[in-house]
Amino acid sequence: MDRLVLKFGGTSVANLERIAHVADIVAARKQKAKGLAVIVSAMSGKTNELVAWAREAAGDDLQGPEFDDEHDVIVASGEQVTSGLLALALRRRGLKARSWLGWQVGLRTDGAHSKARILGFERPEFQESVDAGEIAVVAGFQGVDGEGRVSTLGRGGSDTSAVAVAAALKADLCDIYTDVDGVYTTDPRIATKARKLDKIAYEEMLELASLGAKVLQTRSVEMAMNHRVPVRVLSSFEGAVAEPTSGTLVCDEDEIVEKQVVSGVAYSRDEAKVTLLGVEDHPGVAASIFGALADAGVNVDMIVQASSRKAGRQNMVFTTTERDAELTKKTLEKKKDTIGFDELVLERDVAKVSVIGVGMRSHAGVAKTMFEALSAKGINIQVISTSEIKISVLIDASYTELAVRTLHTAYGLDAD
Amino acid sequence: MDRLVLKFGGTSVANLERIAHVADIVAARKQKAKGLAVIVSAMSGKTNELVAWAREAAGDDLQGPEFDDEHDVIVASGEQVTSGLLALALRRRGLKARSWLGWQVGLRTDGAHSKARILGFERPEFQESVDAGEIAVVAGFQGVDGEGRVSTLGRGGSDTSAVAVAAALKADLCDIYTDVDGVYTTDPRIATKARKLDKIAYEEMLELASLGAKVLQTRSVEMAMNHRVPVRVLSSFEGAVAEPTSGTLVCDEDEIVEKQVVSGVAYSRDEAKVTLLGVEDHPGVAASIFGALADAGVNVDMIVQASSRKAGRQNMVFTTTERDAELTKKTLEKKKDTIGFDELVLERDVAKVSVIGVGMRSHAGVAKTMFEALSAKGINIQVISTSEIKISVLIDASYTELAVRTLHTAYGLDAD
Repeated sequence: MDRLVLKFGGTSVANLERIAHVADIVAARKQKAKGLAVIVSAMSGKTNELVAWAREAAGDDLQGPEFDDEHDVIVASGEQVTSGLLALALRRRGLKARSWLGWQVGLRTDGAHSKARILGFERPEFQESVDAGEIAVVAGFQGVDGEGRVSTLGRGGSDTSAVAVAAALKADLCDIYTDVDGVYTTDPRIATKARKLDKIAYEEMLELASLGAKVLQTRSVEMAMNHRVPVRVLSSFEGAVAEPTSGTLVCDEDEIVEKQVVSGVAYSRDEAKVTLLGVEDHPGVAASIFGALADAGVNVDMIVQASSRKAGRQNMVFTTTERDAELTKKTLEKKKDTIGFDELVLERDVAKVSVIGVGMRSHAGVAKTMFEALSAKGINIQVISTSEIKISVLIDASYTELAVRTLHTAYGLDAD
Repeated sequence: MDRLVLKFGGTSVANLERIAHVADIVAARKQKAKGLAVIVSAMSGKTNELVAWAREAAGDDLQGPEFDDEHDVIVASGEQVTSGLLALALRRRGLKARSWLGWQVGLRTDGAHSKARILGFERPEFQESVDAGEIAVVAGFQGVDGEGRVSTLGRGGSDTSAVAVAAALKADLCDIYTDVDGVYTTDPRIATKARKLDKIAYEEMLELASLGAKVLQTRSVEMAMNHRVPVRVLSSFEGAVAEPTSGTLVCDEDEIVEKQVVSGVAYSRDEAKVTLLGVEDHPGVAASIFGALADAGVNVDMIVQASSRKAGRQNMVFTTTERDAELTKKTLEKKKDTIGFDELVLERDVAKVSVIGVGMRSHAGVAKTMFEALSAKGINIQVISTSEIKISVLIDASYTELAVRTLHTAYGLDAD
């Protein structure tokens, strides 16, 4: 392999013993890779500690840009430490290695602190060093903005760093080492019959990631898809081998020979359902509701508009995250008269269950299977939302596990 | 005041409570300073923890340049964290502030990792920002070398950072806040009659610093002297006032009106005495001994050459630090035949006691007072070394406190 990128998350570098094991893995992989870049997260727990310190120093009133730039300076120190430690551990094993911080690789971001997006790489020395055979240990999660200040990429941002580095280096493969051994058809903790997937299409992974499967950061999958970077998810808690064959490859749809109609079942409990009763039925009312929520920074997911019993009125149902629920309520009740509705009902005991598969595009009857299977178990569907490769339903949260297991079986995903 | 530089050491920023107090001090000082730069150390204990991690990751065999560059990356993260935290704490108090890391202020070093020297500043934005009234919170102890890598300035390097920033900004004053309230005539822990000095000359402070008084890093005093930066040592454990009048000012000799012959008594227990018995008496023998030690990186301090009872032979006595004692022994015994000597005797139970004062230059009899006072207490002098403003003697370590107190009284330094 000409160029290989590896990434190790927080649990993989949690302490010096784990870092030593990561060094063994990297050393094994170097045997089969001419150029090698390794992206590391902070030791697990470290980022939370640093964020808590920043918050305590700043107090509650300091929010937004006034907080975010220094938050980034503080938090980025975590990856700095692990990059130096891993570089030393590799040298100890007789390998050429050095650390690269975000500003050193010239990973340019857009300056939106604590959720920055990657604009590009500016330092040719980085690529030259990798091509010369020196292992580049890159501090993940961090970059530098146009003003030369530290910016971080948001939670899970090291995945995105890794894919960005792989895209910039035109790497043959980007291996994301984590604490699970791949991507599963569903969460093995609630469905014992969950199967590990050998391959999954970018689009499917993207839906899975945004639907709550926490294996990869959504933006890293987006970036991998845009740059056609083959990404593999595998476990760092296994032995150090030169050419691992385990894990799940996230790749182009075309590379998956035996496509399933449905590849996975995802769920999310971080949901809240909002019902606006008796909304005035006139043009622009939806815009006034969702415009106000967008201004307040609330993410809205499923939306359903239904007629009301009252003439000239309708009901508006939508979902948001549990965290945004209170903000949603406050924002809309403040505008009750402008928008024009009778009552706001907030329900928190809901969950979203989704089935995902690129095969849906060419198969009819996928929704029918879902509705029938849930109905047979007496599970009531409250809201439905669909995309080309996904069907999501909102249900009573207490049925989550049952629904997941039922759908897993219904679509033939169960391990034998 | 147009431009003021403050520095806070590790114990002053040991935790979030202490950082909040430092923010109060900085806020008070800002009232009387147009431009303000604040240099911070890492939280106390943090640097030691990071160094231990680096050492553990690297193992024992990785030494020198192979270890130092990554050591610097790892350790510099400590100051990065405190600079961000203090910037937030200042904003919380309604002040304009931002953090500056070593590479951001463009503090260029010579690239000798872990003991780098400052070459200069490269970023005009830094000075502009200070002049615009934004408080610059600078991560101490760190810079960037010619290759754009992180380098640190060695233990206590934040003092040197502070003086370098003060020199670059042509600051009116550089206040070093620490956990003591000034420079004392001697260590108050062993001499209760020690007095705080209001002023001390650069040259005296330099001798005190290199002789073991740990108030300021030696190189910071050197730099202050070269750039004529007025430096004041004061306590961060007192209240926050706009114009503190306490502390000790380190300044030009000319600014001290009432000069004492002796300003202070210093001591160091980190000493080892090496005696080479029966050294061949021929030209170049001293060069071969001390050349070998210099190549091994051993610092040699006092040197005395005395005749031996054996014809054509002499004895060579010198001191080094306790840490370097074993290395000295190994280095010289390996070269025993080349150098030509009979035996090497190593004594560790020795201490160096020194009296310092710029007034010595114009006063005779200073040494006489010292020798008489020590003799009167039955303290035997093993080695003597003098400079223009200092006399040092090597004695049995068990007499250290007695010697310090005796000299403190003999030179009229006791508080009444």
